[in-house]
Amino acid sequence: MPHYPQAAVQVTAFDWVPDFARGFVRDLRVRWALEEAGVSYSVRKITAVGERPADYFSEQPWGQVPSYRDGETQLFESGAIVLHIGRKFGAVLPEDEGGRSRATAWVIAALNSVEPFVMQLPIIDLFHQGEAWTVERRPQVVEMIGKRLDRLADWLGEKTWLEDEFTAGDLLMVDVLRNLQSSDLLEQRPNLLAYVERAKDRPAFARALKAQLVDFEPRAATAPAQNQQGVAA
Amino acid sequence: MPHYPQAAVQVTAFDWVPDFARGFVRDLRVRWALEEAGVSYSVRKITAVGERPADYFSEQPWGQVPSYRDGETQLFESGAIVLHIGRKFGAVLPEDEGGRSRATAWVIAALNSVEPFVMQLPIIDLFHQGEAWTVERRPQVVEMIGKRLDRLADWLGEKTWLEDEFTAGDLLMVDVLRNLQSSDLLEQRPNLLAYVERAKDRPAFARALKAQLVDFEPRAATAPAQNQQGVAA
Repeated sequence: MPHYPQAAVQVTAFDWVPDFARGFVRDLRVRWALEEAGVSYSVRKITAVGERPADYFSEQPWGQVPSYRDGETQLFESGAIVLHIGRKFGAVLPEDEGGRSRATAWVIAALNSVEPFVMQLPIIDLFHQGEAWTVERRPQVVEMIGKRLDRLADWLGEKTWLEDEFTAGDLLMVDVLRNLQSSDLLEQRPNLLAYVERAKDRPAFARALKAQLVDFEPRAATAPAQNQQGVAA
Repeated sequence: MPHYPQAAVQVTAFDWVPDFARGFVRDLRVRWALEEAGVSYSVRKITAVGERPADYFSEQPWGQVPSYRDGETQLFESGAIVLHIGRKFGAVLPEDEGGRSRATAWVIAALNSVEPFVMQLPIIDLFHQGEAWTVERRPQVVEMIGKRLDRLADWLGEKTWLEDEFTAGDLLMVDVLRNLQSSDLLEQRPNLLAYVERAKDRPAFARALKAQLVDFEPRAATAPAQNQQGVAA
């Protein structure tokens, strides 16, 4: 959707991140949910590398992005914002409360039962590259992720989505699984790979991804290195 | 609350875990929310060390505990179950939708912005004790947790709870922070330590903890060692 400066929904995003993080900053999840719902939003850019605005920690306790505001409600945590968008605008949550609880279970599963395993791999490969401890640890991490993905692949089977329809749970799960792109852990599980590709084929995902990418501003190549808490917002 | 075998709400729990895990298995979170709401429940015990019941993965995709059933709804993921209990029975969620979204933000914050850091410490200290990689990695982990706790301590300040009243967000956050008891990371931040103690002083927490502990069955000391995915359910 076009971004109107006066839109009722406002999302924060970073004005610049290194190439490896582009398309993976967590405002993407919120943009995706808003695109699924057909809701216009405006973007407030903050810096990923410098000081946060003085009062930013009062709306986002970790100083990360995204934070979200829709006139009535101010929120942080991409998973909670996506659930809020689902309740307020529909699109990514079923109408019935039972279906909403099931979708919420998959949101939490993505964020607490899959992402903490998955993210250990880019943390090793990007932020601790070359450190001695990673030589022993990396194979353990790959094995742990693989076991968890095997369970997820068992659940998914030949289904299109995790439940009967596309929900916030799929949105979060796919965004988490995208972080495995530099490994072959998805390729080893064809139904999971196809699931991720199916979700990325949604027009709303494409619009959200494009919107995040075009919002980054050019910057000289001498920008300081990122730390993992700064970028993995 | 007393446990009635015919109660409409059923929660799964493990029949036995090693001493270090007692009081920390995640059915505690669900018991706590049910105790806050004054809802009776029955417990279905499964084994933590042997094969799961054949169809258990169809209700809990990771094979962990808890799973939850209340007649209308079957759920997994402790955070999602606690949110469901709040919507269905009250007690751990505010009445207004905006307040519920804020509480949900803190649930997700606990599970995605705090626990993935916090749990790396017991994973090193309990499951990878003595491995060479932990010597270099452990101080990095302690530093990361400390930075995250500093932000949380800043947010909490002198407040009693994270928002205006005790919510599911406090319940999850405190249960996550309890895993730091073997370090001095909480003692270094007195307002966080007091916050955890204040929550543990709630009668509902005490009843939930006692109920989990008495539900474990005696077993010979030769039970096999646990792995981290098996117990950290």
